[in-house]
Amino acid sequence: MKRGVLIVLSGPSGVGKGTVRKALFEEPDIDFQYSISMTTRQPRNGEVNGEDYFFVTRDEFETEIANGDMLEYAEYVGNYYGTPKKFIDQTLAAGRDVLLEIDVQGALQVKEKMPEGAYIFLTPPDLAALKERLIGRGTEAMEVIDRRVSAATAEIRMMANYDYAVVNDEVSLAVNRIKDIIKVERLRVNRVLPEYIKMIEELEA
Amino acid sequence: MKRGVLIVLSGPSGVGKGTVRKALFEEPDIDFQYSISMTTRQPRNGEVNGEDYFFVTRDEFETEIANGDMLEYAEYVGNYYGTPKKFIDQTLAAGRDVLLEIDVQGALQVKEKMPEGAYIFLTPPDLAALKERLIGRGTEAMEVIDRRVSAATAEIRMMANYDYAVVNDEVSLAVNRIKDIIKVERLRVNRVLPEYIKMIEELEA
Repeated sequence: MKRGVLIVLSGPSGVGKGTVRKALFEEPDIDFQYSISMTTRQPRNGEVNGEDYFFVTRDEFETEIANGDMLEYAEYVGNYYGTPKKFIDQTLAAGRDVLLEIDVQGALQVKEKMPEGAYIFLTPPDLAALKERLIGRGTEAMEVIDRRVSAATAEIRMMANYDYAVVNDEVSLAVNRIKDIIKVERLRVNRVLPEYIKMIEELEA
Repeated sequence: MKRGVLIVLSGPSGVGKGTVRKALFEEPDIDFQYSISMTTRQPRNGEVNGEDYFFVTRDEFETEIANGDMLEYAEYVGNYYGTPKKFIDQTLAAGRDVLLEIDVQGALQVKEKMPEGAYIFLTPPDLAALKERLIGRGTEAMEVIDRRVSAATAEIRMMANYDYAVVNDEVSLAVNRIKDIIKVERLRVNRVLPEYIKMIEELEA
């Protein structure tokens, strides 16, 4: 059984991660499992356990944390939210790809525990556009430009932790780039080699 | 100017590197520079210097070696053959991709000097087919199988030095996989990041 690929879609807030993720799942030839989060908040009307979230008690969540079973988590307005490792592990082991959409802080935590994933950083339109956006129309105060440049510098520093930078100039283009990445990730030697080695070991035994 | 990508196409002898390379260059949407070798042998009828080979004297070739300007070289029937670094460097710096088709020994030498390339290992048909080929029809002598298994083991060990494993089950499929790899290599953070950093430095200056 060939192990699935963990695809982590991340990027600065406001870049359009959610939109790209939804468009990706609407592609007819895509069959990812979406990584389901765990939370201690109450289910809302119509929300289904194991589909929208894994709904657990505070005790259960804290046991997961204590056992090192959360890839990342945060507390927000009195409730825990996090990514359970076991669900992702089992899905990958069953040969299915998993997509995790997550903010930059979360992605870094996940990477520490699952460095074998494909880490994609979604970026605002390309370099030329970024430069234009930063400098503006030349009418901007120096202070405004400085602030934008330091924000961009921080984003670019984040990017260094990822494998791929995908420009979100148009959602359909970003989706195609991500589909290409997944296709090509399956050809990477570090994913293919374990199978070959296993086969050889079986033949030599 | 965005630097080109060095694509190194390699693999065990007999796997079909040359056929795949030729098919790749026939693709309408491919615009690689083919890496031109340097040699001390005499040009044959119709061969053009700087197109088929860089034809040089023995002295010139040995000066290149002494200056560390050969990515790899070998002597064969009294003549030197090798890959000059400068030509590749200049082509990449001009923003053009370079394809180098080379045997496994050569590829490893090139990788030491240009680890930033995309190293593709062309493999015989997939795992199932390989296993079948190794075991044969069950009528093979144990000795024959053992020999095949050790040959395959050696190939798989070589593969570990590469970035991608591309199965050459059908030439057109292998060509498409390589085209996908090149597309996606351009999205890799280590290729994109230097441009962003340069832009930021210019803006901060």
